[in-house]
Amino acid sequence: MMKPVELRKNVWWLAHRSDSLLEVNVYLLCYPHEKGQANLMIDPGPPELLTYLQKAVLPITGGLDKIQAVLINHQDPDVAPNSAYIQKLNPQCMVVASEDTWRLIQFLGLKASRFKAVESYRNHRAIMPGGNRLIFVPSPFCHFRGAMMYYDERSRILFSGDLFGGLSYSHDLYATEASWEGIKTFHQLYMPSRDALKLAVSRIRNLDPQPEMIAPQHGSIIQGGLIKDFLDRMYNLEVGLDLLIAGEKKENYLGAVNEILNELEKEGSADALAKGIAALNRDRSFTSIMTFVGTRVTGFKVDPPIAVKILLEHLRTYGGTGLESLVNLVALKTLIGRNIPIGDILPQSGGEQDLPDYFE
Amino acid sequence: MMKPVELRKNVWWLAHRSDSLLEVNVYLLCYPHEKGQANLMIDPGPPELLTYLQKAVLPITGGLDKIQAVLINHQDPDVAPNSAYIQKLNPQCMVVASEDTWRLIQFLGLKASRFKAVESYRNHRAIMPGGNRLIFVPSPFCHFRGAMMYYDERSRILFSGDLFGGLSYSHDLYATEASWEGIKTFHQLYMPSRDALKLAVSRIRNLDPQPEMIAPQHGSIIQGGLIKDFLDRMYNLEVGLDLLIAGEKKENYLGAVNEILNELEKEGSADALAKGIAALNRDRSFTSIMTFVGTRVTGFKVDPPIAVKILLEHLRTYGGTGLESLVNLVALKTLIGRNIPIGDILPQSGGEQDLPDYFE
Repeated sequence: MMKPVELRKNVWWLAHRSDSLLEVNVYLLCYPHEKGQANLMIDPGPPELLTYLQKAVLPITGGLDKIQAVLINHQDPDVAPNSAYIQKLNPQCMVVASEDTWRLIQFLGLKASRFKAVESYRNHRAIMPGGNRLIFVPSPFCHFRGAMMYYDERSRILFSGDLFGGLSYSHDLYATEASWEGIKTFHQLYMPSRDALKLAVSRIRNLDPQPEMIAPQHGSIIQGGLIKDFLDRMYNLEVGLDLLIAGEKKENYLGAVNEILNELEKEGSADALAKGIAALNRDRSFTSIMTFVGTRVTGFKVDPPIAVKILLEHLRTYGGTGLESLVNLVALKTLIGRNIPIGDILPQSGGEQDLPDYFE
Repeated sequence: MMKPVELRKNVWWLAHRSDSLLEVNVYLLCYPHEKGQANLMIDPGPPELLTYLQKAVLPITGGLDKIQAVLINHQDPDVAPNSAYIQKLNPQCMVVASEDTWRLIQFLGLKASRFKAVESYRNHRAIMPGGNRLIFVPSPFCHFRGAMMYYDERSRILFSGDLFGGLSYSHDLYATEASWEGIKTFHQLYMPSRDALKLAVSRIRNLDPQPEMIAPQHGSIIQGGLIKDFLDRMYNLEVGLDLLIAGEKKENYLGAVNEILNELEKEGSADALAKGIAALNRDRSFTSIMTFVGTRVTGFKVDPPIAVKILLEHLRTYGGTGLESLVNLVALKTLIGRNIPIGDILPQSGGEQDLPDYFE
């Protein structure tokens, strides 16, 4: 347990650390005004932090019952649940979130009468005591549809929720170059696709003035020159489905190439096939594009369509007359059956003449 | 409140209806065996359902404390929280979910010692009392990364979580053709991209034997001929980011076309421009491809690149010599500045000759 850290005047990081890989950050924003002070909490976290939060805010606000509003990025159990307890302590406490998030956090037992949708604010911004603006920046599908970032114009800190969150390989408050690894892994795991990241990064780049800190809900806070650098890397990061689809694609090609080899083997070309592969293994052509165990392909070392194309070319050229007439026929059937584009793999011009039976 | 419905022998829909647009379905699976009966609950829902669930299961299992395992699709507040209460009632109750989901539902206060990751089961399946299998079918990013469907081989019911969930425009137990509208809207809102849907639908199509019912966590249960039909529609549905990106694209083209018109106006071609647009409005060319207010484009009626291309062609042809020399220059600058591919919009061959200054 650490003492709260004042990131900028009246903006607090509530500094809970559990030595886990997924550290939770809770932030407190105070806006002094003539009659007192408005206190906002961002992403108040899970119930297990409640006692800690009470102790942490006591010297700053006088207690959790002095929190007048809670801003929620999205509905996950590590982000939102304490908002219900804070609203029990201060029944007037407002909850601010997107409509999409509200549809789910209302199940925590929050009062509809004390909910304020960010969509209801003109131009997605609120004027805070002191005259500065709090700007609502949607980050759809980072990772939840209704994810909402909060930009405090006064301190120029962007509270980004899961976006720019990172696994904590180290537990530093401020990110260093070394923090990227944990950020990258976290995003590759939880973010659905690079489209979502590009959209959110573009919106951050459009903020005026630009943020001086990005404060995520997990991991370290990003500041200074790292902001531009990490924004650029994030814009080009492949994540979630991008990686899953690439993986599925590879598996599909692997299945296809082995199906082709099996069928050629069954068609009585086993000898020709074995000899061809053995010969090719000897001259190292194959070991540079794919790995074999016997006549079974176990992996690709280059882009799968290229590897399959080269293999088929070699089989046609060096497999003897027994194979030559069969390769395209068998490959065509297999590739079409697996929805693999044949244009990249099989010769196009005049290819039909080799396969009269198939098209009859 | 309705009575529980036995969908298939020993498989219960716990039949809670709240007349909301987002109805929550909870399911109970019972596996009788020599020494008694194993009871599994799927997605036990939010705390507000707890009392109802106790009443509903009482005649079937003898109470919630007789639930031996809870299977969780993902961590959302409408899906998972009651698992913590059930585990309080039966401290031996297992929680089964993906590792990715566990990382978040553990914040509900669940016991790590009673968690079983689906990834720890060989081949993603468990043998249930009676010998039938319960098959774990991942549906990554539908909508959460770690979303897990559960296929009860005995009843041939697939418990699909948010996938195939629907908004309840009607509150029928079984889906009809008319249910697609609510399913479509729900997915367009919550699912990140068609890639996620294609992946999940492919996995359902690969199940052997094929499911006879798809039982989602929201809305109506799908059965019979509708299964194949809805799978096909889902495979081709554009959702979430697909729609957002298309929307962003349209806004970008709208911004571009108005920027071009503004700049041409500022360049002293206001009269030519106004006359050109007026003439074109009269002959109805424009009203069929875009909508205008004065010289400002307010919307496209065809694909934006085509609309912009036709507008520029018309301006070059009918805008008089004052416009002719400026149109491509101004358009090129604007389109490149907005990352819009110029190949679809500007004439390619010989175009350079018209723009000597720009390329110097």
